[in-house]
Amino acid sequence: MKRLTILLIAICLSIMAVQAQGKKNVFHTLPIYGKYFDTPEQFHRVDTLRYGNMPKNVKNLYTNSAGMFVTFRSNTSELYARWCVTDRKVGLNLTAIANKGLDVYIKNEKGKWQYAGSKGTVKTCEETLVLENLDSKEKEFLVYLPLYDETKSLEIGIDEDASFQPLTNPFKRNIIIYGSSIVHGASASRPGMAYPAILSRRTGYNFINFGISGNARMEKEVVHMLADANPDMFILDCVPNSSPEQVTDRTSYIVTYLREKHPNTPIVMIPSVIRELSYFNQNWNKRNHLQNANWKAEYNKLIAKGIKALYYLDNSSLLGEDHEATTDGTHPNDLGFMRMVEQIEPFVLDVLKKHNIH
Amino acid sequence: MKRLTILLIAICLSIMAVQAQGKKNVFHTLPIYGKYFDTPEQFHRVDTLRYGNMPKNVKNLYTNSAGMFVTFRSNTSELYARWCVTDRKVGLNLTAIANKGLDVYIKNEKGKWQYAGSKGTVKTCEETLVLENLDSKEKEFLVYLPLYDETKSLEIGIDEDASFQPLTNPFKRNIIIYGSSIVHGASASRPGMAYPAILSRRTGYNFINFGISGNARMEKEVVHMLADANPDMFILDCVPNSSPEQVTDRTSYIVTYLREKHPNTPIVMIPSVIRELSYFNQNWNKRNHLQNANWKAEYNKLIAKGIKALYYLDNSSLLGEDHEATTDGTHPNDLGFMRMVEQIEPFVLDVLKKHNIH
Repeated sequence: MKRLTILLIAICLSIMAVQAQGKKNVFHTLPIYGKYFDTPEQFHRVDTLRYGNMPKNVKNLYTNSAGMFVTFRSNTSELYARWCVTDRKVGLNLTAIANKGLDVYIKNEKGKWQYAGSKGTVKTCEETLVLENLDSKEKEFLVYLPLYDETKSLEIGIDEDASFQPLTNPFKRNIIIYGSSIVHGASASRPGMAYPAILSRRTGYNFINFGISGNARMEKEVVHMLADANPDMFILDCVPNSSPEQVTDRTSYIVTYLREKHPNTPIVMIPSVIRELSYFNQNWNKRNHLQNANWKAEYNKLIAKGIKALYYLDNSSLLGEDHEATTDGTHPNDLGFMRMVEQIEPFVLDVLKKHNIH
Repeated sequence: MKRLTILLIAICLSIMAVQAQGKKNVFHTLPIYGKYFDTPEQFHRVDTLRYGNMPKNVKNLYTNSAGMFVTFRSNTSELYARWCVTDRKVGLNLTAIANKGLDVYIKNEKGKWQYAGSKGTVKTCEETLVLENLDSKEKEFLVYLPLYDETKSLEIGIDEDASFQPLTNPFKRNIIIYGSSIVHGASASRPGMAYPAILSRRTGYNFINFGISGNARMEKEVVHMLADANPDMFILDCVPNSSPEQVTDRTSYIVTYLREKHPNTPIVMIPSVIRELSYFNQNWNKRNHLQNANWKAEYNKLIAKGIKALYYLDNSSLLGEDHEATTDGTHPNDLGFMRMVEQIEPFVLDVLKKHNIH
C-alpha cells in the first residue's frame, strides 16, 4: 500500500514536471513598426538629438511609443509580454492600459485584425500573461505599445515549443498624422483605439502617429522635421492646442513648406473637434469656433493662391451629436474615436483614390 | 506723479479685491440620489450591517457609490467639487475619473441631460474646479459620484452670489439592475457612462446600479436583500461571474423568490455579453456560451412552470460586431456601453409599456 502511494506520488510529480516544462516560455524581441523615422533610440518616434531645436515638450513627447507595434506569426497557446516604461504617473484621463500597457490583435478568418486582449501596468517593468488557451492553429499577432510613455524594452513570450516568425509591416504606404493629444491617443481605453491605429486596421494603410499631447502648434522646427519625411499623405489635425492667432499665423507656413518639399503629396486639413466642454464654457466656445474659422480661412487663402492637392474635411460633428463621446470634455473616449474614424476614413480614402494611391 | 502711481495701484488693488471676492465660493451638501435603500452610511448602496450575512466582497462593493448623483439648480459661473474617497489604487482598466472622480451634466434647451465636464483624482480628498465660464442663466446640474470607490463626503461649490436650489430626483420609478462589474461600470471612461446611468438619462426612468465587480453570483443572502426592495422592475445581468453550474443551480431561486415577494413586478433576464477574449481563449469560449445556454434553459423552465412577467433579452451581440467595444476583453469601453444601451433600452421600454408602467 505504501509503495503504491509512493508510486502514485512519483507519477503525479512527473506529470506536473512535464506540465511545468510545457509551460516554459521563450522571449523574443521584434522589429518595431508604426513609426516613420529610424531613430537611435528604437522606441522613439523622432530623433530628438537630430531635431534638437524643437520645443522641449515636443521632443519629450516624441519619445513616447504611441502608434508602435510588433507583429509575428505563432501557434503558441499562451502569449506573454515583458516590457519596461518610465516611472511617470498614469494620467487622470487615461487607463493604465492605454498609458503604459499593451493590446493584442489577431488576424481572424476573414483576414481582419480582431482584438484579443490587453494588459495595463503601473510598474516600470512588467511581465505578464496577456493571452491564454489559444487553439493550436498558426495565427498572426499584432501587439500595440504604450501610447503615453517611453517604452524602454519589449519582449514577447511564447510556448517553448511553439512556432515563431517575425512578420513585416502589414500596413502599406505611409500616412503621417500630425496632431495633438487626440492623435496621440487620449482618451482611448487602450493603445489600439487611438484613431490612427483604428484607421490602419480598417483601411490597410499605415497611418503613423505624430500626435503630441498638449502641443502640435506648428512650430517651424517641427514643420521642418515633418518635411524630412516622405509619406504618401500628410494629415494635419493640429488645431486643438493652437490659439486662433497661431492658426492664422502658422497654417500658411506648414502647408506651403510641406508643399514645396513634396510637390505632389496630398495634404488633408482636419478641423478641431468641438470640445464638449465648449458648449457650456463660454471662453472655450468662442475659442474653439475661432480656431476652426481661422483654419478654414487659411485653407481658402491657400487654395486661392493655387496650392494643389490640399483638402479640408469640413465637419463640425466629428464626435457625433449626443455629447457623450469624450472622457473629459476634450479627449474622445472610444465612442468618440470610432465616430471620428467613421468620418475621416471615407474622406481620406477618397483623396487617396483621386491621387491614384493604392 | 508718485501720488498718481499710488492712486492707480490703490484702484488696481481694489478691483483685484472685488474680483477675488467675486471668486469666493460657497460649498453645499446635497441629498444623494441613484440608490434605492436608506442606509446609515449615506454613500453606501446597501446597509451592510443589516445584510451582514452577504459575502464579504459583496458587502464591500455595496459601499461603492456607483450610480449615485446629486442635482441642483444654479446660475453659478463656476462649479467646484470637494470630495473624499479611500486611498485604494485606481484599477488598471479604469481612469481615475471613473474610479474616484465625478462628471457633470447640465439640462440643455431641449430638456436633455448634456455632458459638461469631469474630473478625476488619485487623492483621498480633492477640491477642484470642474466647470468654468458658464453663462449667467439658471441651469439644472447633475453630478455623478465615483463608480469604484467608497465616497466619504461630497460638497459642491458655487459662486458666493449665485442662486442655489437643491432639486428632487429627475428620474421616475425605480428599476433595479443587479449585475457584475459591467453593471458596476467597468470600463466606462467616467461615472455617467456606466450603462444604468446612460439608460436613466435616455429614458427618464431611475435605473439603480446594483453592480458588484467580480461578483453577482446570486447568493441567497443577496437575493433576499434585493427582494426587500420594491422597484417597478428587476433587471438581472448576473451571468458574467456565475459559473455555468451556478447559473443552473441558482437562477430558479432568484427568479422565484423575487416573484413570490413581488407577484407583479416584471423581471428582465439579460445574458452575459460575449467576452471579446472568448473568441480566442478556448476555455472562456466554452464557458461563456455555457453560461448563457444555461441561463436561457433556466428561463425556459421558469416560463414552463408558469412564472409570469419574466422576460429574456435574447441577444448575443450586445457589444456589436466589430470586436472593438471592450477595454480588456471583458469590460465594455464607452463604445460598448452605448451599444448595450441601444439594445437594452427598447427591450426594457417595451416591457414597461406591456405592464402599463409610465
